[in-house]
Parts: sequence; structure tokens; C-alpha cells
Amino acid sequence: MSVTLVGAGPGDPGLLTVRGLERLRACDAVVYDRLVAEELVDEAPEDALRICRDGLSQDHVDRLLVELGRELDVVRLKGGDPFVFGRGSEELEVLRAAGIEYDVVPGVSSLAAVPAAAWIPVTHRGLSDRVTIATAHAADGSEPDYDGLAAAGGTLVLFMGLARLPALAAGLIAAGLPAETPAAVVSRGTLADQAVVSAPLAELPARAAGLPGPALVVVGEVVALAESLAPLAALSA
Amino acid sequence: MSVTLVGAGPGDPGLLTVRGLERLRACDAVVYDRLVAEELVDEAPEDALRICRDGLSQDHVDRLLVELGRELDVVRLKGGDPFVFGRGSEELEVLRAAGIEYDVVPGVSSLAAVPAAAWIPVTHRGLSDRVTIATAHAADGSEPDYDGLAAAGGTLVLFMGLARLPALAAGLIAAGLPAETPAAVVSRGTLADQAVVSAPLAELPARAAGLPGPALVVVGEVVALAESLAPLAALSA
Repeated sequence: MSVTLVGAGPGDPGLLTVRGLERLRACDAVVYDRLVAEELVDEAPEDALRICRDGLSQDHVDRLLVELGRELDVVRLKGGDPFVFGRGSEELEVLRAAGIEYDVVPGVSSLAAVPAAAWIPVTHRGLSDRVTIATAHAADGSEPDYDGLAAAGGTLVLFMGLARLPALAAGLIAAGLPAETPAAVVSRGTLADQAVVSAPLAELPARAAGLPGPALVVVGEVVALAESLAPLAALSA
Repeated sequence: MSVTLVGAGPGDPGLLTVRGLERLRACDAVVYDRLVAEELVDEAPEDALRICRDGLSQDHVDRLLVELGRELDVVRLKGGDPFVFGRGSEELEVLRAAGIEYDVVPGVSSLAAVPAAAWIPVTHRGLSDRVTIATAHAADGSEPDYDGLAAAGGTLVLFMGLARLPALAAGLIAAGLPAETPAAVVSRGTLADQAVVSAPLAELPARAAGLPGPALVVVGEVVALAESLAPLAALSA
């Protein structure tokens, strides 16, 4: 009896890890995020409990993991990586306090894989040797530290930024980031209906309006590399 | 005929993605980094060419990928993720210029998975909602921007920092980071011989001296969480 936090990766089911798949195929119960691919949930044994956490509060999820983890081998299947804005560490604290055994299997985080799916490398020799990962809003819902983000240098990767994109772009520009900084929104990255909009930072909110979530915002010179990295012909794989 | 850049993950072979494994099992040739697990190279078909890039210059690797990619289905198996300090984008530029078809399969980057293996979450609600990823030296070998790193806030994750750890710690402290900031070196993270040293930043170089590479340096309040997240009993998985 245990709970294993498994990172499901950015969306494309092929980006689950080999160990994550093994644990999933051996579990008695899977508690999964709304955005996890159905194909992955289907990998759990036929008689496994399947519980989508959509609509449940974090407290409810925590209690559920403790209850199930006392009796069953549970996989907690989380989008991306459990420790990159995944609240995985909060779930571990609850499990440890309750005396439940647990483990973590890291996942492919969206932070580099979603830009990669749009042919944007978050680092590139001579262009960006630093990446700053943040959310478009602070944990208490307040504005992010625009001054710090604008001064970070290198590549910015912003999670949960779609709804707040106009405020985000305006805040970064007001804090000193040039209006013409290359920027992109990658909507539903790595999924079949992925969409990418690239534009100078000042124009991005208008250009990306109406894109569906989840989405990642990338800001920095590396965005401009996509043009020289995207294949000239699609690979017939 | 094509070249697929595949991220092998941080070291533990179970952290390769399902798609990465599929590509590896179907390839005619694999060109792999020195630090990639032997078990993964063994997954290539028995009659596949196996070439370790250890000792080859980047130019040599580039030429090799172009030559092989004209005739064969090649997997370029890279440690971590190809686009996080992996020079993957440079290899793609060369392949595109030569008219070789290519694709990228992202990997689990060390940036979160290696701290996770030491029970350090790079983000934690209320403690760190920002992660800055950098190398301990600039591309030209010069000192990193200590002022920027010290002012970044949140969690710092520094690649290739072991040899330069004394200069790194001194530089960050001189730039304003408190000497008592929690910090850790994770040596050979996710591998069987992983070692972790945690100490206040000022004491880290002395405490971590002699650890083998590769290693990741993590600096920030999240390092102190490891004590409350590490299992009280090892999971018998």
C-alpha cells in the first residue's frame, strides 16, 4: 500500500516515462488530473479504481489519497512534473503526516517540452543561458514581480498565463522589457490540436486572444529561433 | 532516413519516455552521450550502430549526424532534455542546413528530477513560485552574472557547478545572497550511487568537496523541505 506521484508529462501520452507507465499498469487506483490523456488512464488495470480530481478541492484530494493509500497501491497521475507548480510536495507532506508510504516518479515538465513542440529551445548557446520559470500570478492571486521577471535575462517561461496575458505583457513592458521582445503563446502544447502564436511581446495579447488553455507563454530571443529550427518538411513518422 | 534527438533523462533509465524508447528500439544507429545509461543503449536493435560521442568535438558530432542521417534512422540520445543546456538546437540547425529530416522527443530534465531525487521540490506554494536555471559558468567560460542570480528570488538550479562551487558560493554571497541560504549539491542524481550534501550556502563548498560529477547545485528555501518530504521509511518498491 502506497501512493506514487507520477508526472504524466505535458499532454502527449508518449511523453510518460517508462517507470511511470510500469507503476500505472500495476496500480489498484489512479487519481488523475483533468488534463491527463485518457489513453494514459486507460493503461491502469481494468479493475483499478479511476478517479478524476476535476472539481475536487486540494483538501479533498489530500484526504482521498490518504484513505486510498491505506488499502491500495495508488498512482496519483499529475500533469507535467509533480514538483514544477504541481503541488506534489504538498501532497507528500499530507501523506507523510498520515504515515502512508509514497514515492515520486518525475515527469517531462511542460517548461521545456511545450516550447520544444513549437521548435523553441529554452536555451541556446550565445543567445540564452538562463531560464526563469514563474506563474503569471502569485499564489495569493496578486500580480507577479514584474521588475524581477523583466530583469531576469535569458528566457522567461510563464505558466497559467493565458487569461492574464494582457496584464502580463503590459507589466513586463512597464518594468523595462522591450515591447519588441520575441514572445509566443503555445496553446495545448504537444497535443494534436496544439496552436502557436508568435509576436512581439506588445502585440502578443491581441494576437493570442481566444486561444484555448492550457497554454504556456515564452518570452525571449530564443522564440525567434523557431523559424530556423522547424522542419522544412514534416517528418513522416 | 532521419535523426531524432531523444532526451534520455537524468540518468535512471526508467526515466526515458515511452516514445523515446520506441524510437530507440526502431533505430539503425544510436549516437549517445557518455553519461547515458548503458541499459538504454542496449535497447537499440542488436545490429544497430552504437557510437559514443565521448571525446568527439561538437563539430565532429554534427558531421556524424549528417552523414548517418542521410542513410539511416538515427537516434541521438542525449542526457536530460535536448533543449535544456543540451545543445540540441545547434544540432538541429546543422541537420536542417544539410536537408536531413529530424524530430525531437523531449526528456525529463535534470532541473527538477535531480532535486526531486533528493526530496527537494523546486517549487512549493508559499515558499518558492519561481525557478531560475543557469550554468555555473557563461558559455565563454567567464563568471556568471552573480548579481542577477542573487536577485532572482525563488529557487536557483545551477548546472555544471561542481568544479566551480567555491567561486559560485562566494560570488552569490558577495552579490547579496545570505550566507545561511539553504543549499545542496546532488551528485549523480537518480543513479544508484547518488549522494546529497545539504548545507548553508557558505559551508557548501567545503562540505561537498570531492563529490563525483555530474552534479546539480540547488539554492533556496525549498532545500530545507527535504527533511519534511523524505520518507520516514524507504519504500520497498
